[in-house]
Amino acid sequence: MAPPDERRRGRPRSVTADAILDAVESAGLDGFTVSGIASALGVRDGTIYNYFSSRQAIAMSAGTRALARLDLRSEHGDDWVDYLIGVNLELRRATAQMSGLSGYYLHGPYLPETLQVFDLQIDQVAGHLGLDVTDPAARDYAFILASFASTTTLNLLGAPTVPDDQVRAILRSILPALHSTLAGTPPTGVSWSALRSSLLKDSPTAD
Amino acid sequence: MAPPDERRRGRPRSVTADAILDAVESAGLDGFTVSGIASALGVRDGTIYNYFSSRQAIAMSAGTRALARLDLRSEHGDDWVDYLIGVNLELRRATAQMSGLSGYYLHGPYLPETLQVFDLQIDQVAGHLGLDVTDPAARDYAFILASFASTTTLNLLGAPTVPDDQVRAILRSILPALHSTLAGTPPTGVSWSALRSSLLKDSPTAD
Repeated sequence: MAPPDERRRGRPRSVTADAILDAVESAGLDGFTVSGIASALGVRDGTIYNYFSSRQAIAMSAGTRALARLDLRSEHGDDWVDYLIGVNLELRRATAQMSGLSGYYLHGPYLPETLQVFDLQIDQVAGHLGLDVTDPAARDYAFILASFASTTTLNLLGAPTVPDDQVRAILRSILPALHSTLAGTPPTGVSWSALRSSLLKDSPTAD
Repeated sequence: MAPPDERRRGRPRSVTADAILDAVESAGLDGFTVSGIASALGVRDGTIYNYFSSRQAIAMSAGTRALARLDLRSEHGDDWVDYLIGVNLELRRATAQMSGLSGYYLHGPYLPETLQVFDLQIDQVAGHLGLDVTDPAARDYAFILASFASTTTLNLLGAPTVPDDQVRAILRSILPALHSTLAGTPPTGVSWSALRSSLLKDSPTAD
């Protein structure tokens, strides 16, 4: 019979999926390793794989969990531009706190839950514009506006030094300019419904 | 002494760096493998490594060569907006012909030659705006405008179904809107000179 402290050392430390995702959030979505996370939690690498099938499955779950915290349902102001400004200021704060989240938001690979993050924004923008949210063409149009806002915010305005007021001012000028040029019709062949189907088809499962 | 055909089979087939890059261009910058390129050229994998040190070195050289073909010096019209429209229509054509080139242009990793592709655009935009092209602040400002144009073109308008006229109309509306809001000052802390230095420092060498 091994001495008590030996047995304690040999017993697997308990961990939860949430604790693993917390550790990934601290380490950063782009740079973490499974060994680093296991070491930070004081467990063996194999223990992590009891909860997630792969590093990518962990990354997708951590990205999805971080995005699920965004407040996408509230009005964020009077019109669709104010709404997208509010969402993108939240997105900027979230990506500033978690290295690699911006890349996940823009490029995936996505879990179906993350597609709902986009769908919620599309609902709100289409609603604010007075469009029929059940009409795929209206959703494609709202997608274009939301996508343009996020791409500009995370790329051009991604630096943490850019103050919120500047993000606000820039989105308030470029979004109406795009809307006025497109006048309700998405660029030819650019479709959220098509993209959404292809994303769902390609999406790897979480575990 | 081996029979003549045996000797011929054993002799390395000759290849050139340009032939390797041609093959990468056909296969696509994002999906090619060294074995696939070697096989397409009828040589052994090792022969490829006589010309390039790694897959990444090949990708960077192929991306750089494709971008070097862009016509960035010509006027492309009367003002900075027309200039950026002309450049980005060329960029769209080039990226449509070579899978993965868009990602290389937006994200690198870059060879120093590719930084010159950005510098040339900055020179032209600053010049069209009547700014002093030797002033780093003016170059930072021109960089913001050029970067916004390319990001929008390659992301929002990246689909080959979008006609040139639509790209033109959209850039003609959003670029002046951004310029009017920024009024000559880049977003706080966003700087081409700083980014350029960090890119040069991080840039892996070609071989």
